[in-house]
Amino acid sequence: MVGASGYTGEELVRLLLAHPHVDLVAVTSRQFSGQPLPHVFPRFAHLEKAKELTFSDADPTQLARGTEIVFLALPHGRAAEFAKPLLHAGARVVDLSADFRINKAAIYREFYGTDHPAPDLLGKAVYGLPEIYRDQIRDAKFVACPGCYPTSILIPLRPLLRRKAIDRRRILIASLSGVTGAGRKLEADYLFAECNESIRPYGIPKHRHLSEIEQELSILAGEKMVIQFTPHLVPVNRGIVTTIYTDIAGDVVAMDPALVYGGAYGQEPFVRLLGEEHLPNTKNVVGTNFIDIAWKIDNRTRRLIVMTALDNIIKGASGQAVQCLNLMCGFPEIAGLL
Amino acid sequence: MVGASGYTGEELVRLLLAHPHVDLVAVTSRQFSGQPLPHVFPRFAHLEKAKELTFSDADPTQLARGTEIVFLALPHGRAAEFAKPLLHAGARVVDLSADFRINKAAIYREFYGTDHPAPDLLGKAVYGLPEIYRDQIRDAKFVACPGCYPTSILIPLRPLLRRKAIDRRRILIASLSGVTGAGRKLEADYLFAECNESIRPYGIPKHRHLSEIEQELSILAGEKMVIQFTPHLVPVNRGIVTTIYTDIAGDVVAMDPALVYGGAYGQEPFVRLLGEEHLPNTKNVVGTNFIDIAWKIDNRTRRLIVMTALDNIIKGASGQAVQCLNLMCGFPEIAGLL
Amino acid sequence: MVGASGYTGEELVRLLLAHPHVDLVAVTSRQFSGQPLPHVFPRFAHLEKAKELTFSDADPTQLARGTEIVFLALPHGRAAEFAKPLLHAGARVVDLSADFRINKAAIYREFYGTDHPAPDLLGKAVYGLPEIYRDQIRDAKFVACPGCYPTSILIPLRPLLRRKAIDRRRILIASLSGVTGAGRKLEADYLFAECNESIRPYGIPKHRHLSEIEQELSILAGEKMVIQFTPHLVPVNRGIVTTIYTDIAGDVVAMDPALVYGGAYGQEPFVRLLGEEHLPNTKNVVGTNFIDIAWKIDNRTRRLIVMTALDNIIKGASGQAVQCLNLMCGFPEIAGLL
Amino acid sequence: MVGASGYTGEELVRLLLAHPHVDLVAVTSRQFSGQPLPHVFPRFAHLEKAKELTFSDADPTQLARGTEIVFLALPHGRAAEFAKPLLHAGARVVDLSADFRINKAAIYREFYGTDHPAPDLLGKAVYGLPEIYRDQIRDAKFVACPGCYPTSILIPLRPLLRRKAIDRRRILIASLSGVTGAGRKLEADYLFAECNESIRPYGIPKHRHLSEIEQELSILAGEKMVIQFTPHLVPVNRGIVTTIYTDIAGDVVAMDPALVYGGAYGQEPFVRLLGEEHLPNTKNVVGTNFIDIAWKIDNRTRRLIVMTALDNIIKGASGQAVQCLNLMCGFPEIAGLL
Repeated sequence: MVGASGYTGEELVRLLLAHPHVDLVAVTSRQFSGQPLPHVFPRFAHLEKAKELTFSDADPTQLARGTEIVFLALPHGRAAEFAKPLLHAGARVVDLSADFRINKAAIYREFYGTDHPAPDLLGKAVYGLPEIYRDQIRDAKFVACPGCYPTSILIPLRPLLRRKAIDRRRILIASLSGVTGAGRKLEADYLFAECNESIRPYGIPKHRHLSEIEQELSILAGEKMVIQFTPHLVPVNRGIVTTIYTDIAGDVVAMDPALVYGGAYGQEPFVRLLGEEHLPNTKNVVGTNFIDIAWKIDNRTRRLIVMTALDNIIKGASGQAVQCLNLMCGFPEIAGLL
Repeated sequence: MVGASGYTGEELVRLLLAHPHVDLVAVTSRQFSGQPLPHVFPRFAHLEKAKELTFSDADPTQLARGTEIVFLALPHGRAAEFAKPLLHAGARVVDLSADFRINKAAIYREFYGTDHPAPDLLGKAVYGLPEIYRDQIRDAKFVACPGCYPTSILIPLRPLLRRKAIDRRRILIASLSGVTGAGRKLEADYLFAECNESIRPYGIPKHRHLSEIEQELSILAGEKMVIQFTPHLVPVNRGIVTTIYTDIAGDVVAMDPALVYGGAYGQEPFVRLLGEEHLPNTKNVVGTNFIDIAWKIDNRTRRLIVMTALDNIIKGASGQAVQCLNLMCGFPEIAGLL
Repeated sequence: MVGASGYTGEELVRLLLAHPHVDLVAVTSRQFSGQPLPHVFPRFAHLEKAKELTFSDADPTQLARGTEIVFLALPHGRAAEFAKPLLHAGARVVDLSADFRINKAAIYREFYGTDHPAPDLLGKAVYGLPEIYRDQIRDAKFVACPGCYPTSILIPLRPLLRRKAIDRRRILIASLSGVTGAGRKLEADYLFAECNESIRPYGIPKHRHLSEIEQELSILAGEKMVIQFTPHLVPVNRGIVTTIYTDIAGDVVAMDPALVYGGAYGQEPFVRLLGEEHLPNTKNVVGTNFIDIAWKIDNRTRRLIVMTALDNIIKGASGQAVQCLNLMCGFPEIAGLL
Repeated sequence: MVGASGYTGEELVRLLLAHPHVDLVAVTSRQFSGQPLPHVFPRFAHLEKAKELTFSDADPTQLARGTEIVFLALPHGRAAEFAKPLLHAGARVVDLSADFRINKAAIYREFYGTDHPAPDLLGKAVYGLPEIYRDQIRDAKFVACPGCYPTSILIPLRPLLRRKAIDRRRILIASLSGVTGAGRKLEADYLFAECNESIRPYGIPKHRHLSEIEQELSILAGEKMVIQFTPHLVPVNRGIVTTIYTDIAGDVVAMDPALVYGGAYGQEPFVRLLGEEHLPNTKNVVGTNFIDIAWKIDNRTRRLIVMTALDNIIKGASGQAVQCLNLMCGFPEIAGLL
């Protein structure tokens, strides 16, 4: 694991230490180099494996030796310097940053404000969303795990787009996220007393994840899609609720989301369909790798409203990365995740 | 004040005790009848006026005597039993419940699930939103204060509807509210451990406030309007953020929200225009009677996104009631509110 | 499981459903009788075992049939009506209420304000604190699980009392607890907006748990002990921090808490010794069955300050109950708890 | 105001802008120099006075010109560079930092870890606690405002020490504080996701405020006092609860705290005596300049437990500074504070 000191890194360490088929052999962090893992994360203090691990500042070549898979949990813009030499040295790489989710350098520049650090690698990674790209992930050398917002959006929209059940030009999305979504960043905006007792929209109208969402939606739809995406920050540690507003394409009476979703996800191990009886609540998914999906048809407006909840650090990041790992290694997909 | 023991009641007591031109002469509460005000609300313990007040279970006729204005802060369905005799006895009434906001008994039944308790009074109250009905409020005998969500929605939408700047058939609204919005209700859903670390949509697709929002929008537009309204509950004590998605009606380039809002609200004492430079944050409005309004034009989608923030208990309830009081009594509109 | 609808009940269900050696065959709840388990607790919706369980209102005799161990997670005063017939019918009973922790009817009356409902059973239950009563629990027919505060206090004090390292007449304890400690009670004091942004002492000077703490300390010390115990409520869902102030009995220089605690708990699976380098933090224990213990010697005051942190619902209730179950059934003590 | 960008600075700005007898003429901040006040603090956006103020990086000599009183709201260690030239230039100075609360350079070094930056000024400032030093504050040129914890401790202990009602060698204090107590510091420990859902002790056994508390208690007692002080951090924005454990010196039956406190503070405008009927709760004092005091006698342990609550940013800092200002300028003591 490279960059194990952020929130997604910490959670990934937790999942890997508990994984029945994984042997975590190295954790790196510039900031904590030389410190034993339990010193930095006291919650792992009782684990024998954790006691044997010390944060290093190892270089990619060293890491490639003796490891089969390397996870990168680095801030965007920094993953390339590890991904390139690691892939070159033959390691398989699962990247949790945003750097290899986008296929086009121009889009990366537009949304991230800098040139892409390794444009030759663009388009080389499989987008690590098992519910959509399961087969490709199995064989992938290089996986780019989706962002938390995109996960909460792409999974519920895919079956609707496939069936052409909705008007693809009129999709609006309001998302609400907990504060770990911003990472363990030292910015005044994320201090306790700034976030607590505060609700606020941000990143409107062009949040960075929009680039990734529209790219993937366009692939699913087979044509360029433009949507509205508006995130809000709310004072919880973890959890995303996404509310998606869609215009029903054909006859409202004929629309049967239970059928659509049951067909698409009835067998998915980490998708729970709440139907129209229950609404999602982050407290039911926090700490798990599930995405809960609910829906309501509004006959008055002829809209289908789909709502999802997930844990931004697990299904939105580290849990999904482990789900990819399981696929890549031929483990049961749920190994270490239930 | 009738029904002073809920969150809006408590806040209204606070505002009235501090108001330079008001003499609060009676507070009623069935639950706390006989108890001194500071016993129930220790935060008022230092106020001389508060020490003189004891909760009573007074009947309307008694209350009408010796009072000029009576505030009703009762749950919906219970305001009528006070409003009728009080109005009959010549008192002016400011009702904070939902009972007299709706003009039609059928709509009330549809959204509140019971027959209206006093249909003969429907349509008799002025809708207490000073930014829209200032003149009518001045002369009103009977004022129905708007709900918190409607306040956060009607103020920003009015200038856009008036100027026909947006497509009125395609308005979507996502609101996020703190937990006091539910009142001091003893329901498991509002226990600390149920709300804390929880984000959830609710009341979708037909929250009760929708009835009031659509009624007032239809009046503003001069034709029946149907909108999408989706509230979410988030773990803060107070505050609402509302995000409104509108399709720009004409030329996007010609759309100038600063002009529209500056013209409409530049002189309003309790509307703060943040423009497109800042986004609203509940922490800037909690404890105040302000509504903050911001906007962003998204050229990609040709939408205007308008965002507001207010304190659901003050501008969304008790502060607005005092604003109405000031108008009704000829006090400066800001008296007791800044 | 009898009374599975409170916070400890819900957590116990979670632990038992995931336990490798347990088959949960019945859950009861008067309130939810007839409802499937996943309907009441959507977080278990994906578990096959959970789907097969429906809340019943079964009577004790029925329950005793076909079960080996029955857990009671009922409010105090109500456990006796189940415990008596269950024990009579030959079931082993693990009671999570306060009813059988106290040995004397007079003390129960003094602290709980009512006569004990089954005085003949007093003193019959083993106090379910494995770190102290491990051997007795193994053979017990009837176990009374300790309260959350007592667990956070008895474990750290026991080695100090045994070694006569502190002045047993001068022990003061300040505890801070999250809100689930109060249970899923419908009282206004536990509504979100009452607890959030609030810190308050309560139950001073005679909180109910004091009876249990002093009884057990007296047994450990071999003489009657009287202590000071002051709980405080703080706005987190879960977690207790307890700070214990003790006067060092002999020479301060000779006092070596690392030796004392290492000797006592070095091999305990659920006690983590932080030493004097780290202070406890509830976030490191929430979701686990650990109790973290740290200490500081203050040479200025000749005091040893011992601080603990635990999850009130797990080590303070349901996790500890499972630990007892493991001992009673000869399972590994950590089964289902790591 | 020098250093107006922290939490105490922001609150002091709020209080001074609303103060009926104060004209705030300058606000300084290195970080925000050149920015208009409402840009940095949007909550003041509607205030005419606020619109006229721009953060400057003015030097002390400039500031001394045309101002009567200068408030310093700087981190400790940095107040001296302003205090010296300002006092020299004839300005009256109210310092909210810790730098001039301590009388002895050696103590400062022991607790703050660095040499005092202006030892010649030590002992020159009046300790700005009006309930104890009211007369000295009236005439002071230089006031050092007390820390938030010391305020919550010194006010309740003073009458007990004066009357020799308690054993002064055996005082223990547990305090619980909200996160603004740490200031607007960019440290990972104060990020939202680190503090939220976390309870933890810190600064044990020698928190910096202990130096100030013991100094002032020793002055009150007329002899050197050593106490135990243990702070804890809990996830609220504002508020301190302090629980003080004292051994009653003489006959428990003769101890009458109501008499002691009524005599000492019955006329104090910002002390509210809750007696033994109510316990303090931060929610009753947050946003106010009050300190609430309650007490319980425990006959079993012969202890008097005194509990206080205050807003750490107001009575614990900026409100108290304004209270001092009012005394220094001959304004009513409550001006701008009720």
